[in-house]
Amino acid sequence: MQALEERILRDGRNLGNGILKVDNFINHQVDPALMDMCGREFARRFAHVGATRILTAEISGIAPALMTGMHMNLPVVYARKSKPVTMPDTVYLTVAPSHTKGRMVELIVSPEYLARGERVLIIDDFLASGSTILGLVRLAQAAGSELVGIGALIEKDFEGGRTALTHLNIPVESLACIISMDNGQIIFKD
Amino acid sequence: MQALEERILRDGRNLGNGILKVDNFINHQVDPALMDMCGREFARRFAHVGATRILTAEISGIAPALMTGMHMNLPVVYARKSKPVTMPDTVYLTVAPSHTKGRMVELIVSPEYLARGERVLIIDDFLASGSTILGLVRLAQAAGSELVGIGALIEKDFEGGRTALTHLNIPVESLACIISMDNGQIIFKD
Repeated sequence: MQALEERILRDGRNLGNGILKVDNFINHQVDPALMDMCGREFARRFAHVGATRILTAEISGIAPALMTGMHMNLPVVYARKSKPVTMPDTVYLTVAPSHTKGRMVELIVSPEYLARGERVLIIDDFLASGSTILGLVRLAQAAGSELVGIGALIEKDFEGGRTALTHLNIPVESLACIISMDNGQIIFKD
Repeated sequence: MQALEERILRDGRNLGNGILKVDNFINHQVDPALMDMCGREFARRFAHVGATRILTAEISGIAPALMTGMHMNLPVVYARKSKPVTMPDTVYLTVAPSHTKGRMVELIVSPEYLARGERVLIIDDFLASGSTILGLVRLAQAAGSELVGIGALIEKDFEGGRTALTHLNIPVESLACIISMDNGQIIFKD
């Protein structure tokens, strides 16, 4: 998506070691108009998959998932990283390695909001190694939900996440696909 | 706001001890259409304050703040509770007691996105004791920003947060104001 790629080139920072700083418009400061455009684009790309619920992970997945949910008229569930007192005693929990935190994090969903028969569309900010998204996939599978699609704002193609998702045999869409961050550059596919 | 009050009565749960479970539509599962309505209402109520930036706290403030930002055409900044690797070495940090977590949490904002001369509107999910919002107030003050308004989806009037904010002498708006949760009930003001 051209508007997102242009924003990455303008305001994103390649910090080296594959780390892309996008906290000007995605994950500390958020540009609502850009997120709205991204949500509309995800809604267009996934219009045919028959999703009944959107699943994401707190924290930075919330903005794109919420806007996608608005344009698809679907509820959004965000996996929590710690269990609040308002959650039932028995939950779905998985662990996934966090690239930015350098440790394992928990992803927790209440069975109240992810159930057998749901058709789940996963939306997140990044598709890098795929480890967070695979955590969300395991939660959906544990709940007996069916996965119908995966969308990420930004894909780091060189970290292999798409390959790690191939076995799911569902559409995987990213709005900006980066094929190289070598030598301080940010190079998009095509 | 009638739609929010009706939703609280329908899907909220009074868990006792002043704890209101709203994770069906605000803070685990999110209803994007309802959040959009709430954002539009905040935009209407704060249309006159001349805000240049919206400030909230991760995690559950993000949805209402994002929708308010969309309707006011303003950037949204969410204070982080841990410092990611992409944040500069020197930041604004304060600590605030968390009612639901039973401990102090950090609230962190990068000086890149909160600066002298900004006119800051704070939006959060709850106004209870006011401790999280007062933490955001301290961050804005540390940055030299001017506070121009405070909005919360749900106010728990009996926890005294509004009184704790009086000294700021700025408009404080809530979209659903609960005056009592005694005996398992949820009673709104008026």
